[in-house]
Amino acid sequence: MHQDRVRRSDLRDLVVSAEEAARLIKDGMTVGMSGFTRAGEAKAVPMALAERARTEPLKITLITGASLGNDLDKTLAEAHVLARRLPFQSDPALRKAINNGEVMFIDQHLSETVELLRSRQMGPVDIAVIEAVAITEEGGIVPTTSVGNSASFAILAEKVIVEINLSQPAALEGLHDIYIPTHRPAREPIPIVAPQSRIGLPFIPVDPGKIAAIVITTKLDSSSSVLPPDAETRAIAGHLTEFFLHEVKKGRLTERLQPLQAGIGTIANAVLHGLIDTPFHNLTMYSEVLQDSTFDLFDAGKLDFASGSSITLSAAKYQVVLPELPRYKQRLILRPQEISNHPEVVRRLGIIGINTALEFDIYGNINSTHVGGTHMMNGIGGSGDFARNAYLSVFVTKSTAKDGFVSSVVPMVSHVDHTEHDVDLVVTEIGLADLRGLAPRERARLIIANCAHPAYRDALSDYYRRALARGGHTPHVIEEALSWHAKLRECGSMQSEPASVSAQSLAG
Amino acid sequence: MHQDRVRRSDLRDLVVSAEEAARLIKDGMTVGMSGFTRAGEAKAVPMALAERARTEPLKITLITGASLGNDLDKTLAEAHVLARRLPFQSDPALRKAINNGEVMFIDQHLSETVELLRSRQMGPVDIAVIEAVAITEEGGIVPTTSVGNSASFAILAEKVIVEINLSQPAALEGLHDIYIPTHRPAREPIPIVAPQSRIGLPFIPVDPGKIAAIVITTKLDSSSSVLPPDAETRAIAGHLTEFFLHEVKKGRLTERLQPLQAGIGTIANAVLHGLIDTPFHNLTMYSEVLQDSTFDLFDAGKLDFASGSSITLSAAKYQVVLPELPRYKQRLILRPQEISNHPEVVRRLGIIGINTALEFDIYGNINSTHVGGTHMMNGIGGSGDFARNAYLSVFVTKSTAKDGFVSSVVPMVSHVDHTEHDVDLVVTEIGLADLRGLAPRERARLIIANCAHPAYRDALSDYYRRALARGGHTPHVIEEALSWHAKLRECGSMQSEPASVSAQSLAG
Ligand SMILES: CC(C)(COP(=O)(O)OP(=O)(O)OC[C@H]1O[C@@H](n2cnc3c(N)ncnc32)[C@H](O)[C@@H]1OP(=O)(O)O)[C@@H](O)C(=O)NCCC(=O)NCCS
Ligand SMILES: CC(C)(COP(=O)(O)OP(=O)(O)OC[C@H]1O[C@@H](n2cnc3c(N)ncnc32)[C@H](O)[C@@H]1OP(=O)(O)O)[C@@H](O)C(=O)NCCC(=O)NCCS
Repeated sequence: MHQDRVRRSDLRDLVVSAEEAARLIKDGMTVGMSGFTRAGEAKAVPMALAERARTEPLKITLITGASLGNDLDKTLAEAHVLARRLPFQSDPALRKAINNGEVMFIDQHLSETVELLRSRQMGPVDIAVIEAVAITEEGGIVPTTSVGNSASFAILAEKVIVEINLSQPAALEGLHDIYIPTHRPAREPIPIVAPQSRIGLPFIPVDPGKIAAIVITTKLDSSSSVLPPDAETRAIAGHLTEFFLHEVKKGRLTERLQPLQAGIGTIANAVLHGLIDTPFHNLTMYSEVLQDSTFDLFDAGKLDFASGSSITLSAAKYQVVLPELPRYKQRLILRPQEISNHPEVVRRLGIIGINTALEFDIYGNINSTHVGGTHMMNGIGGSGDFARNAYLSVFVTKSTAKDGFVSSVVPMVSHVDHTEHDVDLVVTEIGLADLRGLAPRERARLIIANCAHPAYRDALSDYYRRALARGGHTPHVIEEALSWHAKLRECGSMQSEPASVSAQSLAG
Repeated sequence: MHQDRVRRSDLRDLVVSAEEAARLIKDGMTVGMSGFTRAGEAKAVPMALAERARTEPLKITLITGASLGNDLDKTLAEAHVLARRLPFQSDPALRKAINNGEVMFIDQHLSETVELLRSRQMGPVDIAVIEAVAITEEGGIVPTTSVGNSASFAILAEKVIVEINLSQPAALEGLHDIYIPTHRPAREPIPIVAPQSRIGLPFIPVDPGKIAAIVITTKLDSSSSVLPPDAETRAIAGHLTEFFLHEVKKGRLTERLQPLQAGIGTIANAVLHGLIDTPFHNLTMYSEVLQDSTFDLFDAGKLDFASGSSITLSAAKYQVVLPELPRYKQRLILRPQEISNHPEVVRRLGIIGINTALEFDIYGNINSTHVGGTHMMNGIGGSGDFARNAYLSVFVTKSTAKDGFVSSVVPMVSHVDHTEHDVDLVVTEIGLADLRGLAPRERARLIIANCAHPAYRDALSDYYRRALARGGHTPHVIEEALSWHAKLRECGSMQSEPASVSAQSLAG
């Protein structure tokens, strides 16, 4: 059966077991694997590595596009295979290994990893392991449900292992647009001028002589862990819709809005989903991961085109979308994450970027990664690539977390991923603050009034009042600025009287 | 005499006094003025505004390129003319008004201001006031020693006041390259592929009907306040040179390096100056402000070409360079700051960006703006435009400030302008830390060992050790993370025993 998938016949002799292919990977190597937000990861070789690590010393640097599915990051972390891991992850077991210092995690803007490899400021990549639906007659590798960093890994690595996944529909071929920027300083402009611009090849061009092994697999992508919209995420979407309507009325946006980007996770997905019941139409997306909401918007006739770097769906949506791929295909492109997230393109297209915060402060600085200022959640991902260069940079979060014991609006964020300069709007279920053109003191008043949960509003106002008395462009009571986080760590709550905000009262 | 400067004859009737021109500016207006890092600012009209504010209510929003010379920001602040000020300043009196909350200051990435005006997310600009050497036959405005935001101000404003400065040499004409990006989402790539790319017009194209008044002036630009290199800045330059040599040896850089950007201020100027006595050659600059060091490098035969948005020189250098402009001109371009700082171009050219920190923390986060986390110094300026998109992002600072009572390396920065993700190297006179590809725990060890002043090294190590015991990807003793700043505020020093680091001991 894999004959029609490995179309270059002289490569068919390279088909081996995962164990055999994995043997090409030696202790201490740097390995670049496909996989982006649980889509299109190599599935068999990493399992074989974890298995091998039971009986022999094996530690590698693992670079991917973004997070892996099928519990691979968990399996690899628990097998202690990972010495270093970059540029993103979202697995609880790996997170634990990172936070206890076992795995050195390099949290990077997703557009930058291959730039650093290409200029040899990191690396080199010894071996690339790439999931593919096919190898073409020329030896080109056709990726599956994600492109991520696969193209540059395959081009830069000394050897390439290809996992041909027979469960991934052959119809994926033609979806990808592989374009690799030239070397600097002699680089040319990236010729994308719209989400639908096709500028590259439908496969990854590699010297077939570098393909060292081919493994046949059948395991499916894991489904997305995103939860369906709830009352709070619907409220967030509602505030944002109202804002967009206002911008249209002011003539600053049309009803087509601008190309949309939405971050990973439950909240961003819900916000995008919320656009279904609005007057906006003929929308486009220039994003990173295409979630359920992208296809809901297609089906609702709201979306004209979507460009991303991966497709990550819930189990139910997966069942519907993948067989229908030929129908969706002409309105979809998957690109290398360097291109989907490229500052040049994001700025040029004028993207509306919607990303998620763990917490933000009264001045609009954003923490998306570090719980309590110290413990890594997932990583900055592409949020910085988009927020810095967006036409409109939006950050969303629920106003509280952990049953209300944590306020997501704080005096000072305990870690900064996005500075006040890169944040135009912040939105919680309580309301929206439009920070454009405002000085820090003006932002503080608006954020406290519009976005903070009522249970924390007075404490924030009190902090701000006392900070103001000390003066400064960005007033703070510096010895108290992180006291909410210190208290959370000590008492498990940011509340003076923990009982006053219960899950109950929040739901009401 | 101004006949040859106002070459379009029908505009000559518009010549009026500064007071008369200033009367076009009404209370409450938004005014866009030329001026970038003390170069090429409109000089007469703002003085007339300050004068008028003595006798009538007059508050405006003042937008410029960057900082103004000739004490204009001081004069305007002290006359209480400024309600809002953006996107940058560097004047002690204005700084005071900002920090006490009298002036609302919007601290912005310098590439973004006109993007926000163009999309009407800020503004509108009622009047532009632009210093020029000439108005062409077509009515085009030829700027003087800076372009800054002048082109977009003139194009977007309803009315334009031109200050023809007879002291600015006519030879400035031909130096400028005015290119304005098209509207989004239908924008085309910016066709710059090298520092010397010329892509626009040598003047600002405006409808001559919008020119409402012309004022004749003769005041010179003020000279730069940059101090000459000292032992510490020379040491910083030395560490960086050594690093570049190492990169050349590794084959990651050539002896031409990559196009250079250097931030404002004494330290960045000194670092650039330090390249004179190195083997590097045929260098280029793609920067923002061209300081003395640019011309020193030209004269030393080290520099082939320099692109910037302004020329800001010491008094001595001014005397030499301006008369010799025709000789330098073919190797110089001045661009709109949107273009000199554009993420698209910065990333494409692969710039080495050298910017200055007030302080950085053990994990490589940078504070360039807020003293003690609260009080604005100057603003983020273009540092973010460059640092985020650079090939190599370098931050420099002396290891201590205020006679050694302040450590510039701290457990946690009190304000973040540049996150760990945007910082490749940090350098003090003590040494250099190469952070590329390192996780936070690895960075901390390197920064403490290589960059911290010996007087603070043990205290930093002690903090880090105790933080490590608590775990986390970025370990902190959260309740103590800002205690160094709290102490400074309370006791005027970060030292346990202030006497132990004196100016004396630091100089030795
Ligand atoms: C920030 C981020 C973690 C939010 O994820 P989400 O699924 O939308 O949001 P949730 O509200 O479900 O929060 C996820 C978890 O963080 C916790 N959390 C949220 N806010 C918190 C806070 N202020 N303090 C502590 N924990 C918090 C939640 O309780 C939840 O914990 P659980 O998994 O134990 O239930 C996620 O969007 C992210 O990793 N972003 C950074 C990368 C990024 O933006 N990439 C997109 C670019 S395309
Ligand atoms: C950071 C910046 C203020 C440093 O300026 P500089 O002239 O090179 O450096 P100096 O060491 O002389 O420091 C300037 C002042 O800050 C003070 N300072 C430096 N570090 C400090 C610290 N950690 N805490 C408090 N004050 C500090 C110095 O004592 C000095 O004070 P003074 O003016 O009262 O003498 C300046 O580069 C800046 O504003 N940068 C931000 C904008 C930018 O980078 N633009 C360039 C992009 S092109």
